[in-house]
Amino acid sequence: VVSGAQGFIGSHLVRRLLDEGHSVGALVRTAKSTLDRRAVTLLSDGSTEGIFECLKAFSPDAAVHLASRYVAQHQASDIDGLIDDNLRFGCQFVDGLARCGVTRLVNIGTSFEHFHSDDYKPASLYAATKYAFHALCAYYADARGMWIVTLKLSDTYGPSDPRPKLIPLLIRCLKTGEELKLSPGGQSVNFAHVDDVVSAIQLALARAEPPPVSQMESFAVRGSEQLNLKEFVELFSEIAGSSLNVSWGARPYRDREVMVPWLGQLLPGWQPRIPLKSGLRNILADVV
Amino acid sequence: VVSGAQGFIGSHLVRRLLDEGHSVGALVRTAKSTLDRRAVTLLSDGSTEGIFECLKAFSPDAAVHLASRYVAQHQASDIDGLIDDNLRFGCQFVDGLARCGVTRLVNIGTSFEHFHSDDYKPASLYAATKYAFHALCAYYADARGMWIVTLKLSDTYGPSDPRPKLIPLLIRCLKTGEELKLSPGGQSVNFAHVDDVVSAIQLALARAEPPPVSQMESFAVRGSEQLNLKEFVELFSEIAGSSLNVSWGARPYRDREVMVPWLGQLLPGWQPRIPLKSGLRNILADVV
Repeated sequence: VVSGAQGFIGSHLVRRLLDEGHSVGALVRTAKSTLDRRAVTLLSDGSTEGIFECLKAFSPDAAVHLASRYVAQHQASDIDGLIDDNLRFGCQFVDGLARCGVTRLVNIGTSFEHFHSDDYKPASLYAATKYAFHALCAYYADARGMWIVTLKLSDTYGPSDPRPKLIPLLIRCLKTGEELKLSPGGQSVNFAHVDDVVSAIQLALARAEPPPVSQMESFAVRGSEQLNLKEFVELFSEIAGSSLNVSWGARPYRDREVMVPWLGQLLPGWQPRIPLKSGLRNILADVV
Repeated sequence: VVSGAQGFIGSHLVRRLLDEGHSVGALVRTAKSTLDRRAVTLLSDGSTEGIFECLKAFSPDAAVHLASRYVAQHQASDIDGLIDDNLRFGCQFVDGLARCGVTRLVNIGTSFEHFHSDDYKPASLYAATKYAFHALCAYYADARGMWIVTLKLSDTYGPSDPRPKLIPLLIRCLKTGEELKLSPGGQSVNFAHVDDVVSAIQLALARAEPPPVSQMESFAVRGSEQLNLKEFVELFSEIAGSSLNVSWGARPYRDREVMVPWLGQLLPGWQPRIPLKSGLRNILADVV
């Protein structure tokens, strides 16, 4: 069973699992067209019991928790959504899994939990809610015998990305020629390809069988290349064979901008296979 | 400003602060008769903006976050309340404080975050929500320059305790002679007197001025004596001068019963002053 199955990473994961012959349940509040028709839609009302009933009916072997609300810099009005989506729903999901006897969970964290490469220093309230959920998971791991592997993702990219992130913005800029205002561009960026991320999730799922070393494990998942933003945009422009109308320094660095990404321990046995150039080339081939 | 000002510890803290001449705001959803009349009632509608407006109007120098929902062993139906009270409200409170420029916060955790005396192993989902809130606080400490001292309390006791806890149950048992069913009684218990807890909170408040060593600190607050439950009830009975109708072993140990309390580092400069015997004698003098 997958939460967030209709999101960017979720839809890629669901397709891969279905292609490999797995039966996949997608726990959703509203069914969207992005959901693969071969998946089983588990439509919940969002209540703790409703979610449990969905899980019980599908009776999954394992779970992937991808559902998440991302807010780069929160306003006070974002608090309800961050708590509801990243903590309440997460807790309902894992509690429902525990009640159904599901013991394998892959949870998704973020490299932003490690501002300044600290053991724990959240770059944003969003990152703090991710770590706070990890703290709730520790109860279920220890008290209910769940095996929970948390993958802390860097930025991600890939085909058909609906998120208002850098690469989709660069593609729009390429198509329309409109100006893109960016920071001075000195921050390092790291993009993991969604196909590599999906492979990492599959490996993490397999990790719980046979029993893993620990009930709770956390690993980094990131791309192989680390460039600064300016270098990245140059590479993108070079592959696209077209210059981009980027205004460097037209906006300031974000408060608590991550200048140097965290380089935590990678998921053992996994490494990124898709070089950034190939990944970008594929995306641009689709676009142009 | 104090959250949870109408609770057991809160009402004792508010009285002490008022007695010492401080102006105290009590952030509440519903005003109760337990609130000292000298306190300023800050009645919020529970929304993020409502809480912020209350805080802004009072303009506190420092804050104590005592509001909490305690659930010994959660059912699925407890999840909403635990998330709302221990995470959403806590986050709204600390976010509102940050927006008001308040930098001193004393937060209350629980020794139950340290099952088997582990660095972090929650004995219950309640304890996990307490630690998860601590994870949210880390964002405000680092990003908003707050100084947050978390006091992790053992069991607490004192006069006029309305909570359905062991000592109030023993008092009822003493008065009515009715049977009290307890576990086999081998677990160690540790009770901190509420007056000692209030002193610890005051010292923790003072700790943030001058600037403390770290933006985030956590300390233990507990009573000086550690007895097993059977010894404790014998002591109680001896002080009361009356035997109690206790059925030992009539109920099993709780799942994840804490058999040996965590002995974390005490708040520097603080130690419990009220011996258990005196504390119990005072309570029993009030009762009999």
